[in-house]
Amino acid sequence: MKTIGVLTSGGDAPGMNACVRAVVRAGVANNMLTVGIRRGYTGLLENDTQILTSRSVGGIARNGGTILKTARCLEFKTPAGIRQAVENIRALGIEGLVVIGGDGSLHGALELHKAGIPTVGVPASIDNDIAGTDMAIGVDTAMNTIMEALDQLKDTASAHQRAFLVEVMGRRSGYLALAAGIAGGAEMILVPERSFRMQDIFAEMARARERGKPHFIVVVAEGASPNAFEIQSALKEQGEPGFEVRTTVLGHVQRGGSPTAFDRLLSTRLGTMAVNALSEGQSGIMVGVQMAGRMMTPLVDVLREARQPDDDLLGLEDLISL
Amino acid sequence: MKTIGVLTSGGDAPGMNACVRAVVRAGVANNMLTVGIRRGYTGLLENDTQILTSRSVGGIARNGGTILKTARCLEFKTPAGIRQAVENIRALGIEGLVVIGGDGSLHGALELHKAGIPTVGVPASIDNDIAGTDMAIGVDTAMNTIMEALDQLKDTASAHQRAFLVEVMGRRSGYLALAAGIAGGAEMILVPERSFRMQDIFAEMARARERGKPHFIVVVAEGASPNAFEIQSALKEQGEPGFEVRTTVLGHVQRGGSPTAFDRLLSTRLGTMAVNALSEGQSGIMVGVQMAGRMMTPLVDVLREARQPDDDLLGLEDLISL
Amino acid sequence: MKTIGVLTSGGDAPGMNACVRAVVRAGVANNMLTVGIRRGYTGLLENDTQILTSRSVGGIARNGGTILKTARCLEFKTPAGIRQAVENIRALGIEGLVVIGGDGSLHGALELHKAGIPTVGVPASIDNDIAGTDMAIGVDTAMNTIMEALDQLKDTASAHQRAFLVEVMGRRSGYLALAAGIAGGAEMILVPERSFRMQDIFAEMARARERGKPHFIVVVAEGASPNAFEIQSALKEQGEPGFEVRTTVLGHVQRGGSPTAFDRLLSTRLGTMAVNALSEGQSGIMVGVQMAGRMMTPLVDVLREARQPDDDLLGLEDLISL
Amino acid sequence: MKTIGVLTSGGDAPGMNACVRAVVRAGVANNMLTVGIRRGYTGLLENDTQILTSRSVGGIARNGGTILKTARCLEFKTPAGIRQAVENIRALGIEGLVVIGGDGSLHGALELHKAGIPTVGVPASIDNDIAGTDMAIGVDTAMNTIMEALDQLKDTASAHQRAFLVEVMGRRSGYLALAAGIAGGAEMILVPERSFRMQDIFAEMARARERGKPHFIVVVAEGASPNAFEIQSALKEQGEPGFEVRTTVLGHVQRGGSPTAFDRLLSTRLGTMAVNALSEGQSGIMVGVQMAGRMMTPLVDVLREARQPDDDLLGLEDLISL
Repeated sequence: MKTIGVLTSGGDAPGMNACVRAVVRAGVANNMLTVGIRRGYTGLLENDTQILTSRSVGGIARNGGTILKTARCLEFKTPAGIRQAVENIRALGIEGLVVIGGDGSLHGALELHKAGIPTVGVPASIDNDIAGTDMAIGVDTAMNTIMEALDQLKDTASAHQRAFLVEVMGRRSGYLALAAGIAGGAEMILVPERSFRMQDIFAEMARARERGKPHFIVVVAEGASPNAFEIQSALKEQGEPGFEVRTTVLGHVQRGGSPTAFDRLLSTRLGTMAVNALSEGQSGIMVGVQMAGRMMTPLVDVLREARQPDDDLLGLEDLISL
Repeated sequence: MKTIGVLTSGGDAPGMNACVRAVVRAGVANNMLTVGIRRGYTGLLENDTQILTSRSVGGIARNGGTILKTARCLEFKTPAGIRQAVENIRALGIEGLVVIGGDGSLHGALELHKAGIPTVGVPASIDNDIAGTDMAIGVDTAMNTIMEALDQLKDTASAHQRAFLVEVMGRRSGYLALAAGIAGGAEMILVPERSFRMQDIFAEMARARERGKPHFIVVVAEGASPNAFEIQSALKEQGEPGFEVRTTVLGHVQRGGSPTAFDRLLSTRLGTMAVNALSEGQSGIMVGVQMAGRMMTPLVDVLREARQPDDDLLGLEDLISL
Repeated sequence: MKTIGVLTSGGDAPGMNACVRAVVRAGVANNMLTVGIRRGYTGLLENDTQILTSRSVGGIARNGGTILKTARCLEFKTPAGIRQAVENIRALGIEGLVVIGGDGSLHGALELHKAGIPTVGVPASIDNDIAGTDMAIGVDTAMNTIMEALDQLKDTASAHQRAFLVEVMGRRSGYLALAAGIAGGAEMILVPERSFRMQDIFAEMARARERGKPHFIVVVAEGASPNAFEIQSALKEQGEPGFEVRTTVLGHVQRGGSPTAFDRLLSTRLGTMAVNALSEGQSGIMVGVQMAGRMMTPLVDVLREARQPDDDLLGLEDLISL
Repeated sequence: MKTIGVLTSGGDAPGMNACVRAVVRAGVANNMLTVGIRRGYTGLLENDTQILTSRSVGGIARNGGTILKTARCLEFKTPAGIRQAVENIRALGIEGLVVIGGDGSLHGALELHKAGIPTVGVPASIDNDIAGTDMAIGVDTAMNTIMEALDQLKDTASAHQRAFLVEVMGRRSGYLALAAGIAGGAEMILVPERSFRMQDIFAEMARARERGKPHFIVVVAEGASPNAFEIQSALKEQGEPGFEVRTTVLGHVQRGGSPTAFDRLLSTRLGTMAVNALSEGQSGIMVGVQMAGRMMTPLVDVLREARQPDDDLLGLEDLISL
C-alpha cells in the first residue's frame, strides 16, 4: 500500500486533528503517502483533496475542529454517489481509506468497504454512542467543558440559592449527561435511558432545600423527555419549590476547545491503529479501546514491583519525531 | 459494618477529595458512618479525626489537594507504630479502613490488614507507577497540566527558535513524561525505561533544524539519566546545534489544580468500589481499573445498535443525591 | 469607627469575594471589626449576619459567587424597609457600611446614606453599565469567559463553514458584547447603542463568504434589537446566505468562574478604598477607577528610566499578611 | 503614506499577534500596505520580510508568541547596522515603521527615528517596566498564568502544610510579583524595590503558623536579593520554622499561552493608535495607556444615567470586518 486517504465527517469532535496527525505520521512510518480529503464525503465526490505531510500536520493537535473540514452529505448515500466515490478514490491512487467520524460516517465507511475499497473507521463523536469502543474521540474534552460550566454555574447558583436546569448534548444518549453530571457534582441527572417523573424532581428539590443545599443543579440530556424547558414550566407551575429555577442550554461550545490530553492520546492511538490495520490488509472494521474493566488485586501483588509505562506509549514515542 | 475510616497519605494527587466524597456517600448508602483521619498515618497515631457527612464533603470534589491533609510518617512503620494504630482504630470503633495514596501508603495498608484491620487501598499518585491499575488518581490532571505547559512553551519557543528541556515529575517512572509529551507534541521524550545517548539528541536536533521546525521540545522525566541540566550543559558544550537551549522544571504545579472530569469520575468509581469491597468482607486488596485494551470490531456489528452508557454510571448517579 | 458592615447585593459578579476579603483586611488594618450581612438587603432586614475575620475570608478570593450570598429585595425599597434597616444597623453597632453591587444596590446605598448611615458603594456588575468607574468588578472575568467561548465556537464553526449568532449578557449595555467580540475576533457585533439593519448583516455575510472566511461569528448583545433568534429567523428566510446559521445563548456561565487576576486586583483596590473612605468620614459616594486614558510619549522620555510598580500595589502588599 | 512595516523584537509577550493583526487592519483602513519584518531587527538587516494581509492575520490573535518571530540583534546596534537598516527600509518602500517590543527594542526604534525613518513604538513586555504606559502588552496574561500557578500550589501546600518560595519573572522589576502575588493571595511578596531581611521572613512564617494558616506562599521576584534559593538555604539552616520549605521556579511558561481578553484588547488599541500616529506624521514616540486613576463619585451622580461603552470600542468594531 503506497497511498492512503483520510477524511473527517459528520459532527466535529475535539481530537480529530490529533487523529489526522497520527494517520499521517503512521503513514510516513509505513512509507505511505497520505491524501487528505476535505469536507468529508462531499469532498470525496468533488475531488477536494490535499497532500498531507508531517510538516503540514505539525502543531495541529492542540486545535479543536478539523483542518480537513467536515460536512454531512446526502448525495453520497445513493448508489450513484458510492460509485462516483469509488471512481474518484481509484483515480487518486488511494489504496486504503481512514474514515474519522460518528455513526453516519461509519455507515459510509461500510458502503465503501462493500464496494471494494479497503476502509477502516475511527470513532469520533462527543456523544459516546458508538458501539465497539468505550470512548470515542471528543468525549473527554466535551465532558470537561460541561463540568467546568457546571462548576461556574454552581458559583452563581449558590450566591442566589437557585436551581439550574442545564441541557447538555448527547443526542439520544445520556452518557455525556451522566459522566459530566457526576464529575460536576450535579444534584440530579435526567437521561433518556431512565424514565423519571416530575414529582421525583419536586421531591428531590424539596429534600435538598431541607438539607440546606445552597443550589440545585439538574443536568438534562438533550434526549431526555420531558426536556429542560418543559421541566422548567412544570416547576414554575408548582411555585418553584425551594429554589428559583433557571434553564441554560450549553450549546455548541461543547464541540469546541483544545482537546484534552486524554483525547489527544486516544486520537493518536486510534489513528495509528487504523493505519496499521490497513497496512495489514484489514477492511470493514472500526478500531476502538476497552476501558471499563474493574480490578481487585491483593496488596502483596500490587507492591511486588512498580507499574511500567504501557508498551504502546513507547511505540507512539517513536512516531513523534517523524 | 457500622463505621469506616478513610485517610489520604503520601504525596497529594488531584482527585483525592472526590474520592473522599465518594467514600462518604457510599458509606451513607450502606448505612455506615465515616470517620476522616487527618494527616495520614500521623493522624492515626495522634487520634486526629473528624466525622464526615454528606454535607461536609459537598463541593469538595472540584478542589485539588485533600481536605484530610496528608503527611509522610516514619514512626508508623515500626511495630510499635502499627500496634498503636490498631489500638486507636479499635478505640474509634472503626471496623474497616480505606487508604488513599501511593505505594508507601499501600504498604501501610498491607501492615494494617496483616494486623487484623479490614483495609482496602485506593491508588492515588500522579506518577502512575502503581501495579494493579491502569490509571491512578491524579494522573490525568497532572498530564493535562504538563500538556498545557508544553503548549505554552511552544508559543515562546517558536517565537525565538529555541529548544526547551522540560523536566516533569514521575519519580522512577517515565509514564507522565511519555503520555504528556505525546499529547503535547514534544519532539523528544527521555525516560528512565529507555536508555539514550547524547549524540542521539544532537542528531535529532540537527534533523529538526534541517526540516525547518520552529522549536524543539524535549520532555525529560525526573528519573531520566542524564538529567535535564546535565543535558543542557552537554548541548552548550556542543555549541547548541540549531537551537538556543533553555531548561524549565515544571515543579509542584503538577500536583495541584482542579481535577479533570476523568479524575473526578475515576475517584468516584474507586472510592465507591472500596467501600463496597469492605462491606462485602474484603481486605488486603487494592481496587483499580483496566483501560489498556484495544479492539477491532466489524463495522456491521458497530452499526447494529448504539452504545449504552455504562451501568456503573447509572449506579453512581444514585449516590449523588445522598 | 469601630465596626463596619459589608453586603453584596443584586446579580453576583466574579470578584465579590476578593472585595469582601479586602474590606475585612482593610478593616483589620484600621482596627475595625467587620460584620458580614448575608443575602444583601434581605439579610439586613432579617438580621442575618456573621462576624468576618481575616481567617474566615482566607482563600475565598479565588471563588466566584459570594460567600455572603446575594438577593434582590423589594421590601427594602419602601420607607418602612429603610427605617427597619437603619434600626437594625444601629442595633448591630455598625457605624459604616460597604455596599458591593450594581445600580439597584447602589440606589439602596444612597437611601441609607440619606437616612444617616455612612455608606460607600463599590461597583460590581458584569454589565459595566455603572457610571463613575471605567471597570466594575466582574467585567474582566465575564469578558474572558465569553472570549473563550468564542474561541471554542470558531473551532466548530470553521469545521462546518457555519455562522453563529452568540447572545451575550449585558442588559441594556453593549459593553460586554463589544469588548469580548473584539477580543474574540468576531466578524460582527450587534449592540443596543448602534442601530443596524438586517440587510447589513446579509451583506457582511456575503462579503465574508466571498473573501473565503471559514466562519462568521456575530456577537449579539442581549439588549440588541432585533435579538439573536429574530435575526436567525430572518437569515433562514433569506436562505442563509453563505453560511448555515446557528444560535447559541451563553447564559449564566458568564456570571461564574474563578475571577481573573484583574478582577481580584480591582476588587482588592476598591474594597480597600471603600474602607479608607469610610474611616475618613466619607459617605454617599462610590469608589471607582479611571482606565481609559491614552498617552503618547517621546521615546527619549520613555527610555530615561524604567517604570516603577504603582505605590498602591506596595500598599496592598502590606495588607496581605493581615 | 502607502506602505508601513511592522516588527516584533526582544522577549516575546502574549498579545504581540493581536497587535500585528491590528496594525494590518488599521493599515487597510488607511489604505496602506503592511510589510511584516521577521525576527526583529535581524530580519531587517537580512531583508527577511512578508506581505501581511487581513486574511494572513485572521485567527492569529488567540495565539501566544509572534508569527513574525523575534530575536535579539547585536549587530543592529552599531552605526553600520543602523545604516544598513535604513537602506533596507527605503529599498522596501516602507515609509513608516511600528516596533513592538520592550526597552531594547524601543532603543532601536529611537535610533531609526533619529536616522530619519518615521517610527512609532508599542510597549510589549511581561515585566511592565516600560515608562509611558501603565500596562504593556503581555502583562495581564503573565499575571494570570502566575496567579493560576499560585492557586495550584496552594492546593498541594495546604495538603502538606508546606511553605513555597515561588520565583516569578520581571527582570529588575517587582511589578509582576506584586500584582500576581496579591491576586493569588500570597502570604509574602519579595521584590527588588523594597528591601527585606531574613528575620522578617522567619517572623512572618512563625506568625502564620501560630494563626493556623495551612500554607505559606512567598512570591519572590527574580530581581529580589537574596533570591529564592538563597532564602530556602537560610530557612533550612533555621530548621524551617513552622513549614517544610520548597522552591519552584515558574520559568518560561510565564511568556506563553493564549492572551487574555485584556491583552487582546490592549494590543488592538495600541496597534491601531500606532498606525494612526504614523499616518498623522508622528515619529519617535511610543503609544501607551493610563490606567491607574482612582475616583470617588457621589452616588447621586453615579445613578443619574448608565455608563456608555467607550467610543473607541465602537471605533475598533469598525475595523474587525476588514
